[in-house]
Amino acid sequence: MSSFNFSVTHTCGPARRGVMQTAHGSVQTPAFMPVGTQGAVKAVTHRDLQELGVEIILANTYHLYLRPGDERIARLGGLHRFIGWDQPILTDSGGYQIFSLAARRKIGEDGVRFRSHLDGTEHFLSPERAVDIQARLGSDIAMVLDECLAYPASHDEARESVGLTLRWGRRGRERFLRVKDQANGSGPAINPAQVQFGIIQGGAFPELRQVSVEGTLAIGFDAYAIGGLSVGEPVSEMYDVTESTARLLPVDTPRYLMGTGTPLDLVESVSRGMDLFDCVLPTRNARNGQLFTRLGRLNIKNAEFAEDQRPIDADCGCYTCRQFTRAYLRHLFHAGEMASATLNTLHNLRFYLDTMHRIREAIVFGTLEEVRQAYRRIFPLQPADVMTAGDR
Amino acid sequence: MSSFNFSVTHTCGPARRGVMQTAHGSVQTPAFMPVGTQGAVKAVTHRDLQELGVEIILANTYHLYLRPGDERIARLGGLHRFIGWDQPILTDSGGYQIFSLAARRKIGEDGVRFRSHLDGTEHFLSPERAVDIQARLGSDIAMVLDECLAYPASHDEARESVGLTLRWGRRGRERFLRVKDQANGSGPAINPAQVQFGIIQGGAFPELRQVSVEGTLAIGFDAYAIGGLSVGEPVSEMYDVTESTARLLPVDTPRYLMGTGTPLDLVESVSRGMDLFDCVLPTRNARNGQLFTRLGRLNIKNAEFAEDQRPIDADCGCYTCRQFTRAYLRHLFHAGEMASATLNTLHNLRFYLDTMHRIREAIVFGTLEEVRQAYRRIFPLQPADVMTAGDR
Repeated sequence: MSSFNFSVTHTCGPARRGVMQTAHGSVQTPAFMPVGTQGAVKAVTHRDLQELGVEIILANTYHLYLRPGDERIARLGGLHRFIGWDQPILTDSGGYQIFSLAARRKIGEDGVRFRSHLDGTEHFLSPERAVDIQARLGSDIAMVLDECLAYPASHDEARESVGLTLRWGRRGRERFLRVKDQANGSGPAINPAQVQFGIIQGGAFPELRQVSVEGTLAIGFDAYAIGGLSVGEPVSEMYDVTESTARLLPVDTPRYLMGTGTPLDLVESVSRGMDLFDCVLPTRNARNGQLFTRLGRLNIKNAEFAEDQRPIDADCGCYTCRQFTRAYLRHLFHAGEMASATLNTLHNLRFYLDTMHRIREAIVFGTLEEVRQAYRRIFPLQPADVMTAGDR
Repeated sequence: MSSFNFSVTHTCGPARRGVMQTAHGSVQTPAFMPVGTQGAVKAVTHRDLQELGVEIILANTYHLYLRPGDERIARLGGLHRFIGWDQPILTDSGGYQIFSLAARRKIGEDGVRFRSHLDGTEHFLSPERAVDIQARLGSDIAMVLDECLAYPASHDEARESVGLTLRWGRRGRERFLRVKDQANGSGPAINPAQVQFGIIQGGAFPELRQVSVEGTLAIGFDAYAIGGLSVGEPVSEMYDVTESTARLLPVDTPRYLMGTGTPLDLVESVSRGMDLFDCVLPTRNARNGQLFTRLGRLNIKNAEFAEDQRPIDADCGCYTCRQFTRAYLRHLFHAGEMASATLNTLHNLRFYLDTMHRIREAIVFGTLEEVRQAYRRIFPLQPADVMTAGDR
């Protein structure tokens, strides 16, 4: 029934070049997924994404559940049809956003009770409901509900959390398979080819990560993600956990590192065996005037650019760099023009997609280490590079 | 020296079908000019405008003078180069915005002293400075500084205002011709082919409008605009003043109705002999969720559209109508997504450009009256249709 498929075509150490096939088309991996929280990537249109070569986007279940509602989206034919995007979509489980609500949510064995950030109404999300909601959205890849611990967490907290995530994982998987069986009949599933990824937790503790991997593999998902990173831990810790966890995951399914990261993070994580990424950094930073270039970061707000007639990045082929000067982009930012967000976002997304393209080529040609060294030079680690939960 | 040229190819009663040639290309008239206040049309990019077939945009001298500054723009090669738009640009004189500052400005014979809405700093604009600033911007069409009276104005106020506008007009024209002479040498002019339009004032008083026309024609500009309308007067009064004033203007130069208007206003004003229009209505209303369609107005916020799978307008060929449902567009609006502003703006601008296209064809085929009757049915006059100064 499922048209989901993943094939690795080249490797370079732990890094893999592959193709992920979904019901809505294929994705060249390693791949970056722009974040379209509410069914739209902020400040750009779908055709901008298509022109950039985006093959898959991420949408947030929590936001879409609250507004316009998963049942409404189902009545409108599912998320692809509702938002007018017929390429692959991955939806998160909604858990991450709910855990970020802090005081507004309460976790129990059954699930998590929370209050909407929109209107304060009370809601309840369980592993089963996370499946049902995503079935109604009809995304190509659904994520199981996990518990995402705040950083830092003690070993005891992390161990208990891994246990809960595994119990939720089993319930979520059972529900997913039951919904899938019903999909041929009158079940709620919009997209019969939807697959479900499990999520590995365990904080910064390698042995807990191993417990989580073993338990999650025992449940058996279509593929696996590493969660609980990019939540405030030092970058070196993120890389270490990624490396030790990735090597425990199956080689024949894609590996998704959730919520990461900087351009360097992408290269470093691919080098450790990861295939899929999502992050709000390129889009959010763009709206704040922070641009990524082949010469490093550039803050378009700065006075030094007031009469700079060069493009953001002379080697970039994006519409923004082909057409506009830093001076004009700085003006648009300070004038509060929406075109500032749009043009900056086009550039940053292009930089991220170019990075993934460069990575994929380097895997084929066996030159990934050179790319990694280049990105380390261009984006030297800074204290500010520790991603916080808010960055996601 | 000037490559400015206007030729009428067809007429239909007072309505004219023509071509306006500028140093940056030609404009099919009657034409609508989208407003790019700060050097960008809000919520869209230049390529969106080009795809829509926009041939000329308007930019606001007041805003660009304050930020980033006309001298900076001149150093950067002029407005076309600064904003990356190589098609025609018309700049207003800055007067309209300044007069809208109300308590923050003081008018005298010499000019107008005002405080910036950005930082409260004091500035002075005179007819000569309005010319100099626009020369530094290098727009294709510069507007002379006029006094734009608030509505309603007494006959005495309007008469005095016409006198001041004529005296300012003479000073502005003299300065313009002097700057133009210098442009071949080391003068400040960025665009040696820039032309200058005079502005007719006189409120709702036909005999003052006639005085204004005679005096302005005696000064002699490259073409003429009707100012002081769309400031809160009844629509019928606007149409009457337009009709009686347009017939006094030369037949061999374009006639520009400033700050107007609704789709019906465009048809009615073309029918009275006007050729050029600008207005923030299509772009501003788009951002407020108010859309223009072949079936009338539509407010995308409304609950009735929550599950409406139709496009805004089934007969519209814009990207928004080809790709997205009313349900999704309503969601984007309520979710506060920037794509809402972009997609709505693309549609409204397309509707305005389609309207102008329909008007131009109708003039050629002698069917303008049918178009006018159709627009009267689609957009029946309502009290809300009285444009206020804020709409500009």
